Amino acid sequence: VGLISGTSADGIDAALVRLTGPPDQVRIRLLEFTTIAYPPAIRRRVLRLAGGEPIPVGEVSNLNFLLGDLFAEAALEVCRRSRLAPRRVAVIGSHGQTVFHRGPTVPRAAQEKMSPRECSTGSTLQIAEPAVIAERCGVRVIADFRAADVAAGGEGAPLVPLLDYLLLRDEELGTVALNIGGIANVTVIPAKAGPDEVLGFDTGPGNMLLDGLVRHATGGKRRFDAGGRLAEQGKVIQPLLAKLLRLDFFRRPPPKSTGREQFGDKFLATHFLEQPASSLERQRLNLPEPQFKDLLRTVAELTVRSIAGALRDYVFPRGQIDRLIVSGGGTRNQLLMRRLRELMPEVTFHLSDDYGLPADAKEAIAFAVLADRSLHGLPGNLPSVTGARRAVVLGKLVSS
Amino acid sequence: VGLISGTSADGIDAALVRLTGPPDQVRIRLLEFTTIAYPPAIRRRVLRLAGGEPIPVGEVSNLNFLLGDLFAEAALEVCRRSRLAPRRVAVIGSHGQTVFHRGPTVPRAAQEKMSPRECSTGSTLQIAEPAVIAERCGVRVIADFRAADVAAGGEGAPLVPLLDYLLLRDEELGTVALNIGGIANVTVIPAKAGPDEVLGFDTGPGNMLLDGLVRHATGGKRRFDAGGRLAEQGKVIQPLLAKLLRLDFFRRPPPKSTGREQFGDKFLATHFLEQPASSLERQRLNLPEPQFKDLLRTVAELTVRSIAGALRDYVFPRGQIDRLIVSGGGTRNQLLMRRLRELMPEVTFHLSDDYGLPADAKEAIAFAVLADRSLHGLPGNLPSVTGARRAVVLGKLVSS
Repeated sequence: VGLISGTSADGIDAALVRLTGPPDQVRIRLLEFTTIAYPPAIRRRVLRLAGGEPIPVGEVSNLNFLLGDLFAEAALEVCRRSRLAPRRVAVIGSHGQTVFHRGPTVPRAAQEKMSPRECSTGSTLQIAEPAVIAERCGVRVIADFRAADVAAGGEGAPLVPLLDYLLLRDEELGTVALNIGGIANVTVIPAKAGPDEVLGFDTGPGNMLLDGLVRHATGGKRRFDAGGRLAEQGKVIQPLLAKLLRLDFFRRPPPKSTGREQFGDKFLATHFLEQPASSLERQRLNLPEPQFKDLLRTVAELTVRSIAGALRDYVFPRGQIDRLIVSGGGTRNQLLMRRLRELMPEVTFHLSDDYGLPADAKEAIAFAVLADRSLHGLPGNLPSVTGARRAVVLGKLVSS
Repeated sequence: VGLISGTSADGIDAALVRLTGPPDQVRIRLLEFTTIAYPPAIRRRVLRLAGGEPIPVGEVSNLNFLLGDLFAEAALEVCRRSRLAPRRVAVIGSHGQTVFHRGPTVPRAAQEKMSPRECSTGSTLQIAEPAVIAERCGVRVIADFRAADVAAGGEGAPLVPLLDYLLLRDEELGTVALNIGGIANVTVIPAKAGPDEVLGFDTGPGNMLLDGLVRHATGGKRRFDAGGRLAEQGKVIQPLLAKLLRLDFFRRPPPKSTGREQFGDKFLATHFLEQPASSLERQRLNLPEPQFKDLLRTVAELTVRSIAGALRDYVFPRGQIDRLIVSGGGTRNQLLMRRLRELMPEVTFHLSDDYGLPADAKEAIAFAVLADRSLHGLPGNLPSVTGARRAVVLGKLVSS
C-alpha cells in the first residue's frame, strides 16, 4: 500500500498495488485506489502548520499522531474496498504529509568543496506517525522517504522519477513524465537512459496557485476551478505574467524543488491579492468577478508557461523528446492541457493512465514501489535528479 | 552506540557498549562514555521549542536536522575516544531530544472499553534526524523509541526499566532503581520478578526544578547547584511545600510519566518566582539571596519528598524492597542523597556505578540495548510499566 497527502493537503491517497518481477524491472498492477478527504478541521490545522504560522510544538506532535491515525484509516479502507485482509499487505509505504521542505541552499558544485556538516543546510518534515499506522494496521511501515536524500546533500525531491524511470523508460523514445499536482514536476528519460541519465525537477506551481485563488475568491466554498472553466473566461494580465516569469526560481537550472513555502498563500497574497492597482481598480469599477477571472487566467498562464519554459530551456536542448506523459489532478483542467499542447506543438501528449498509471494514483503508487525497494535494501533516490551525493536507501522501517 | 539528550537539554550523552550473550540475558560492557554539550545558541533554540513557545514549523524541521548532525558528532566522538572505526559499530540507538511528550489522557482501564482510535490521545516528539546520523556515521540507526509505545496506548515512558530489569533483577532481593535526571523515575523489580511484574514510573521532578531555579537566579551563569551546597543553606518554606505535595500528579497512582510540560519553567514561574508574598518581601527587605536559597531548599525537599512519597504510597506496600540503586546527575547532589536516606532509613542505598552502570551513562546505555533488541525483533517496552496494550518492537530503522 502506498499513502500520500500532497502539498494541497486535501486528503490521503491510498493505492493498493501488486508488485511482481525483480525490483529493477518491477511490474505494477493497481488493485485499488481511494482518496480519503481530511476532515475540514484537520485540514485547517495542517494548512496553518504548513503555512508557517507560529505554533507550539505540541500541535506538531499531536497532529503527527492524529494524521497517523487518518493514514491508517486510508490504508485500511483501500484494503476493505478490495476485500483484502490488511495483514496480507507486505508493507505500507507512507509519504506522510509534508509540513516543511527546503532543499540545501548551497548548490551542488559548491558542496563538493565543503565538509558534509557545512552543506547539510536543507531540511524536510513529513508528519503522520508511522508507528500509529503500523499499530493500527498490523503491517510494517516504511515512512519518511525524503530525509535520507536531504541528509545525503540532495533536494529530497522529487522522488517519483524513479517510478517513471522504472515504468516509462524506452529503448527508442525520449520521454518526459509531467505531473501536475500542487506543484508541477517533470521526469526526463532520454531513449535508452540508465538511472544516472534521468533528470527530474519541479517546474513551479501546478494546481497550488489556481486552487488557492479559487478558494480565496469563493471564501472557501469552491476548492478548485472545475475543468478550468472559470479561468477560460478571463484574460491574461500580461505585465503581471511577464514580471512573474522573471522570478529567480524559474531562471535557476535544475536540480531544483519547491513547495508551499514558495508558491503558497504568501505568494498569492503578494502578487495577486495585494496588487494596489488591481484592488483599487476593483473598488473603483465595482467589478470583482471579471477581475478574479483575469487573475485566475493569469495564474493558469503562469503555470503552463513555467512548465513549457522549463522544458524548452533545460530539457529539449539536451536531446530528443518524443512523448510527454501527463499525470496529476491538473490533467482534468482542460485549459491547462490545451495551452500546454499549444505551447509545445512538436511533442505528442499522453495521459499516464494509458501506461497503467492512473493520473491520480501515481504518487501513491510511487511510495508503494519505493517502500518495496527499501525493504530490499535498494536505493530509492536518483542522484542525477535530487542532487544527492549518492544513491541511498530511503525511509524508516517501523515493525508491526 | 547509545545516544540521548535528556529533558534538561544540556547536551548529548554517547555510550559505546559491547553487548554479549543472548538478548534476554544480555551482558554489557561500557567501553567509552562522553557528553557533548549543546552549543549555547542551539540549547536556547531547543528550550524555546520544548517550552511550548509558538514557533514556525520550519524551526522544528531545521532543528531536527541540526540536532541530527550534533548527535552524529557525539557518536563519532565516542568512537574516536575508544579508537574504534565507526563502521565497526553494529547499530546506533538514538533517543533524540524530546521536545514534546504527553501520555494518553485516558486511563488504561477506560481504554479497554474504547476503540483504538478514541484512545490514541497521547503523542510524543523526539528530534535529531536519524537519517543524518546514519549518513554521517555510515552506521544504521534505530531512533524514535517512544512513538510505538504511545501508539500501543502506553505512556511512551519510562523505557529504561527494561535495562534495569535485564541487569538488576535478582532471585532474592527486591530492588528499586531510582534515576534522578531532569525528571526522577523508578523501576521496581520484585525478587524473582518476570517482565510482567516490573513496575516503573516517573515520580516527578529530578534536577529539573533545581537547575531551572539556579539558572534563573544567576541569570544563566550557573546551571546547577553543585553538590546541593546552595540549597543546604536555605530553609524549607513549609506551606509552599505542603501545597505542592498535594498536586494531582503526585496523587495519581502509576503508571504515569511527566516532563518539562508539567515541571518546566512555567511551573517554576507559577509556584516559585511569581509568589506575590515572596517577591514583595524580597523587594521590601532587599534580601534576594537568602530568599532564593529558601526557594531552592524547598524545591530540593519537594523533589525528595515526591520520590520517597511515591515509593511509600505505591511501591513498598506491594512487596519487600531490599535495595535502592540510584543513578543520574542527582546522585552528585549530596543534599538530595542525604535527605533520601533520612526519609527511607529502612532501605539500603547503592550507586548504579557499583553494578557496572555508571550513573551518568545509564540512559545512553539503555538506548544501545534497546536498539539491539529492536534489531533482533524483540519488544523494548514493558507494558506493566508504560501501560501499553502489548509489548512492541520499538523504534524506526534507518539504513546507512
